[in-house]
Amino acid sequence: MTAPGAPVTLGILAGGGPLPARVAAAARAAGRAVFLVGLEGFAERSLLAPFPHAFARLGAAGRILALLRENACRDLVLVGPVKRPSILDLRPDVEGTRILARIGRAAFAGDDGLLAAVVRVLAEEGFSVIGAHEILTEAVGPRGLLGGVAPDAAAMADIVRGVAVVRALGIADVGQACVVQQGIVLALEAIEGTDAMLARAGTLARPGPGGVLVKLVKPGQDRRADLPTIGPGTVRAAAAAGLRGIAFEAGGTLLTDRAALVRAAEEAGLFLTGIDPDTTLQGGAT
Amino acid sequence: MTAPGAPVTLGILAGGGPLPARVAAAARAAGRAVFLVGLEGFAERSLLAPFPHAFARLGAAGRILALLRENACRDLVLVGPVKRPSILDLRPDVEGTRILARIGRAAFAGDDGLLAAVVRVLAEEGFSVIGAHEILTEAVGPRGLLGGVAPDAAAMADIVRGVAVVRALGIADVGQACVVQQGIVLALEAIEGTDAMLARAGTLARPGPGGVLVKLVKPGQDRRADLPTIGPGTVRAAAAAGLRGIAFEAGGTLLTDRAALVRAAEEAGLFLTGIDPDTTLQGGAT
Repeated sequence: MTAPGAPVTLGILAGGGPLPARVAAAARAAGRAVFLVGLEGFAERSLLAPFPHAFARLGAAGRILALLRENACRDLVLVGPVKRPSILDLRPDVEGTRILARIGRAAFAGDDGLLAAVVRVLAEEGFSVIGAHEILTEAVGPRGLLGGVAPDAAAMADIVRGVAVVRALGIADVGQACVVQQGIVLALEAIEGTDAMLARAGTLARPGPGGVLVKLVKPGQDRRADLPTIGPGTVRAAAAAGLRGIAFEAGGTLLTDRAALVRAAEEAGLFLTGIDPDTTLQGGAT
Repeated sequence: MTAPGAPVTLGILAGGGPLPARVAAAARAAGRAVFLVGLEGFAERSLLAPFPHAFARLGAAGRILALLRENACRDLVLVGPVKRPSILDLRPDVEGTRILARIGRAAFAGDDGLLAAVVRVLAEEGFSVIGAHEILTEAVGPRGLLGGVAPDAAAMADIVRGVAVVRALGIADVGQACVVQQGIVLALEAIEGTDAMLARAGTLARPGPGGVLVKLVKPGQDRRADLPTIGPGTVRAAAAAGLRGIAFEAGGTLLTDRAALVRAAEEAGLFLTGIDPDTTLQGGAT
């Protein structure tokens, strides 16, 4: 029950990590009611506890849509990492099976295909999907340096190479990140996740100046779902891998805890820089 | 000392693995004298022992060129994996420093840049670089199936997706291989090597039909250096990762031990298929 003219409840389809609760807190601070549907196996129960919420399996689309409707949600945010399920793990309910048929092949092809299809289906079901970054504006990574460490010319050259590589990957709808050291691509991210890629890059690092992590939004990616995210843990993993810094896409990256992120980077002596990929490839300043 | 009109000695710059010795044996079987320069830390001493040879550090370009000239080599084959050195590991000799200056930035940028530059420098030094596959013709992977196992429609779809992804990587001059399962890219190869990527893909595999390894030549790659290679070990690593088969680029892949390779694949129930990437992307038969 919402009063006439009151803002409708913000529905939050919650994957893992701290962001779903942060979106909920930001919306509530802005005077908006929220309702979270935590995806079982991904959403963290303790973080959802302060807010009205329920849990559902990813495959239980019928239950998810019913929960959202029962709680008067019309606007919907999808936020927090969800590992793409195999078709055998999904165990769709009746509604899930119907939706899966509408999504079709895209569900198990490239990431963009799946997320764009999910957003389209939710729109057809009457929901308006908005981006987490539209609610959580203070968490969006800005352009330029965060903190007091800056990349040198060698690190900038590695960033440019990394941007070219991640862009090429993005065109094939896979990966959002790579590690480059001294011009050499040490590691490319597929589905293992950034932290696992960083651990691998640490074992492949060469003597001399350390490498950089480059993490971008895929070209054409629907920013209403699955923005790249970095947090203090990313900085610690990058430092452990011997890296000198992190370049992220300005305006397209969610910072899970900006103050702690910057503190961790300064303590480790790593740079954090928000870049525009196109400007970077054209050889301009970040 | 070579008799007038006799074929000049074939020089072999030998990296790791069995192929340098196989090239030497094939050349000798064709009536040609050979001389191998084994790269320290990469070439296997026991395999080079049956042939006239010497060892040199990769950075000791002066010594390498002198050895090749002293032994009347004019044609030169570069074969066997060599891990790209960091500039600190390289410790170039005087000639090495001079050559490094000629290669310049390419030495530490993309792989193609380095190898093309090395081939160019060797040509300027009076050598004619020929491809290992031109000597070792029976080791070049043919088009179509090797062995009695064939990919099904789902595996073919994974191959098509893998070809598109590896091609995109190749355009950025990085990687030659990936693993795809049920349309999802499990792993992308950077410098960790195919076996390490396969081990990782095994930990990321999903329930249901297993994935495929797709391994291609980079577009525009100089085939006189660093052709992709598969052998019985690749098949064993792919089987351990739960894969259903391997697609390699026909005419551009060296099979290190074809009989053992096919035997290993049949024992593990894996398909081995030589594909033309362009035809595959156009949806044609392999």
